[in-house]
Amino acid sequence: MQELQDFDQTHQTLQEVSNALDSGMFVHVRRLLQDMEPEDIAHLLEASPRKSRNVLWQLTDPEDYGEILDELSEDVKDGIVSRMNPESIAEATEGMETDDVAYVLRSLPNDLSREILSQMDTVDRFRVETALSYPEDTAGGMMNTDFITIRADVEIDVVLRYLRMKGDLPESTDALYVLDEESRLIGHLSLTTLLTTQQDTLVSDVMSDADEAIPVNTDDGEVANLFERRNWVSAPVVDENHLLLGRITIDDVVDVIREDAEHSMMSMAGMDDEEDTFAPVVKSARRRSVWLGMNVLAALAAASVSNMFEATLAQMASIAVLMTIVPSMGGVAGNQTVALVIRGLAVGHIGDSNQKELLMKEAGIGLLNGILWASIIGGIVMVWKSDMMLGAIISAAMLVNLTVAGIAGVSIPLILKKMNIDPALAGGMALTTITDIIGLFAFLGLATILM
Amino acid sequence: MQELQDFDQTHQTLQEVSNALDSGMFVHVRRLLQDMEPEDIAHLLEASPRKSRNVLWQLTDPEDYGEILDELSEDVKDGIVSRMNPESIAEATEGMETDDVAYVLRSLPNDLSREILSQMDTVDRFRVETALSYPEDTAGGMMNTDFITIRADVEIDVVLRYLRMKGDLPESTDALYVLDEESRLIGHLSLTTLLTTQQDTLVSDVMSDADEAIPVNTDDGEVANLFERRNWVSAPVVDENHLLLGRITIDDVVDVIREDAEHSMMSMAGMDDEEDTFAPVVKSARRRSVWLGMNVLAALAAASVSNMFEATLAQMASIAVLMTIVPSMGGVAGNQTVALVIRGLAVGHIGDSNQKELLMKEAGIGLLNGILWASIIGGIVMVWKSDMMLGAIISAAMLVNLTVAGIAGVSIPLILKKMNIDPALAGGMALTTITDIIGLFAFLGLATILM
Repeated sequence: MQELQDFDQTHQTLQEVSNALDSGMFVHVRRLLQDMEPEDIAHLLEASPRKSRNVLWQLTDPEDYGEILDELSEDVKDGIVSRMNPESIAEATEGMETDDVAYVLRSLPNDLSREILSQMDTVDRFRVETALSYPEDTAGGMMNTDFITIRADVEIDVVLRYLRMKGDLPESTDALYVLDEESRLIGHLSLTTLLTTQQDTLVSDVMSDADEAIPVNTDDGEVANLFERRNWVSAPVVDENHLLLGRITIDDVVDVIREDAEHSMMSMAGMDDEEDTFAPVVKSARRRSVWLGMNVLAALAAASVSNMFEATLAQMASIAVLMTIVPSMGGVAGNQTVALVIRGLAVGHIGDSNQKELLMKEAGIGLLNGILWASIIGGIVMVWKSDMMLGAIISAAMLVNLTVAGIAGVSIPLILKKMNIDPALAGGMALTTITDIIGLFAFLGLATILM
Repeated sequence: MQELQDFDQTHQTLQEVSNALDSGMFVHVRRLLQDMEPEDIAHLLEASPRKSRNVLWQLTDPEDYGEILDELSEDVKDGIVSRMNPESIAEATEGMETDDVAYVLRSLPNDLSREILSQMDTVDRFRVETALSYPEDTAGGMMNTDFITIRADVEIDVVLRYLRMKGDLPESTDALYVLDEESRLIGHLSLTTLLTTQQDTLVSDVMSDADEAIPVNTDDGEVANLFERRNWVSAPVVDENHLLLGRITIDDVVDVIREDAEHSMMSMAGMDDEEDTFAPVVKSARRRSVWLGMNVLAALAAASVSNMFEATLAQMASIAVLMTIVPSMGGVAGNQTVALVIRGLAVGHIGDSNQKELLMKEAGIGLLNGILWASIIGGIVMVWKSDMMLGAIISAAMLVNLTVAGIAGVSIPLILKKMNIDPALAGGMALTTITDIIGLFAFLGLATILM
């Protein structure tokens, strides 16, 4: 039961390690690290300030390097790998699964990764090069080449003896793959079936068919959706001729699911989902400034709308005081819709068949909430500023802007998706720009006409 | 290879089903549904407008009801279950795993769920009642009671014969659990070991120890983290005396991971993560208006800051035109930091040991980007408004606000967490309120003093 307080323990260990590092007790740190699992050391590295990471890495048993690198997020991994020499990287990748080696090598400079590949033995090099030839975000990029194949015309008993002779199965093996003479996948035999079938049965009589094979070019998000809906633990990957190329296991799928969901959340705030929590200040500042630059344009666009109504603003300062309320409410309401649509697109609930329905629904919600908040804000302004007309104007602008927010909240992500722009990344800012502009136009325009 | 275009297929089927429904071709729809897997019908229901859902449900084979209900999100499931009578709900739950039955019953009114329980046989009722007695978001609420136990003092051969006699294993079984005489968990035997060990070996000689057992009260997020880091497919759940209570499988963990990540993303936009994409307009509008109400308070707070400077605004309209820029940039920059911290808290990378480090780093990024954007915006304003002083003022306000945004972006989520308030839900709005207020104060205050 040592893992009960796993979380608290990480931060206790972290504190202990950090204290030990500060007082230069490297031997103690090395002993602490020796008692930890590679995945926990990875976690410790992610949670460590950058200056401690290199020391920790030096004090870690090189035997664990490969497994640790595989568990690290891209940014942190790249930071560490960039300080290692090619020989130790090659050494670290020994015994790792093909897809994991590909992960470690993928972001390295070309000449460095070629140098590392040249240090591997021929079989490994060929496998890793094959893995690297598939795009990272496809089934080919996720698969590993560790699996067990059998023939259809043998008895269960033969398979059992074969496995006992092998003495070991690849991690997360829940099925053996059945191939024909041309190495085409024709079915699979689950370990469960293997264990519960009489020994004289032929594999061909109890194997499942090869329906669940994943084509090598399938998008990784789609692979994740298939695993999630079918409750798979592993699945075979095939080429267009149904030749077996590899196997995807649930642990890699879980990473994709986590990353996809994190991607939506981080992108909506204008962040890179691979961003290291403890990245160097200058690097982070540069990355984030791109997004801030987009927002400067959006803010200047809004300011030039206000600028058109400078005469009205000069005439009546209470207009200026109130002019931020309508855009703010529109932005918040619209972003609720954007979040709903982005999730719906990600899990595949929204498509051509139901977009109209969704648009009507969100416009309806915008209208209803528009009426509610128009009345409330209108009332508050009438009392606060003792001005009936000003209350009526802000009410009308609010109603318009919240309805627009509902419609834009559905349309913008859908249009961005059609244009192949990531809706999670650009949706929120595009929405806010529109609700800012419409909100200011409605409020300042009405005020200019009516007051 | 029928699942290659799974995603496109769903929307093709959806379109076909929706056309068939519109023209009243119910027989055709029923046939389409008969060819689909339960999890695909669930997906179809989620992606269908509400008016179609009930018709689709009527046309679905009641045999599939249980599996479909289990795959639906909470809101959609509740909508459907509320229209079923207790007998058909009880019927639908037959043959389902205990945790899945508990999921279906959990949100029902008490008297209805009692009525359904009374229709089950004694063993099932007892199991489901036990599952319902654990909080939904703990290991106890996630586990099912379907597993296979063996004794330590038998030979592998005996286990193999026992499994062959059973003829079937529970879904996602990757290990058998080894109990002592008092039903305490003392270890597990993986199917892999079972298949690769000589038949005359004793279970006790090859079983792994019971270290990985999860205490029944463990939080579901922590369970997910353990599965993710250890690459488990299933894990046993025990009580404080190490009695085996149940088993958690990876498919339920995947749901938790997906939900947790969706929760962060949806909460940050002020949405309920269980929200049905096609919820009724009035219900959605009511739910979302709570969040809009919070934002009204935030917007009014900002407006009352501007109100304090009404005299300045009355004097110079260009101040009013420009006053939205600084708060907008502060909000965007601060929310980048908030997103980073929320993710860091969720995956456990941020704790007491590294908070100071993080604060310094984000303040540094805020300062750097503050200098950058202060210069750019200052320059633009000097040229646009031909006013050196106004440019200097907006520069100074920008620098202050972006630095504050960095500091507040780290502090707010951490403080909320300490107060046991969900940082994903409240963090963004609290941050924006602060950056709005500070931004307006800095800009309008400086303008009042200096112009």
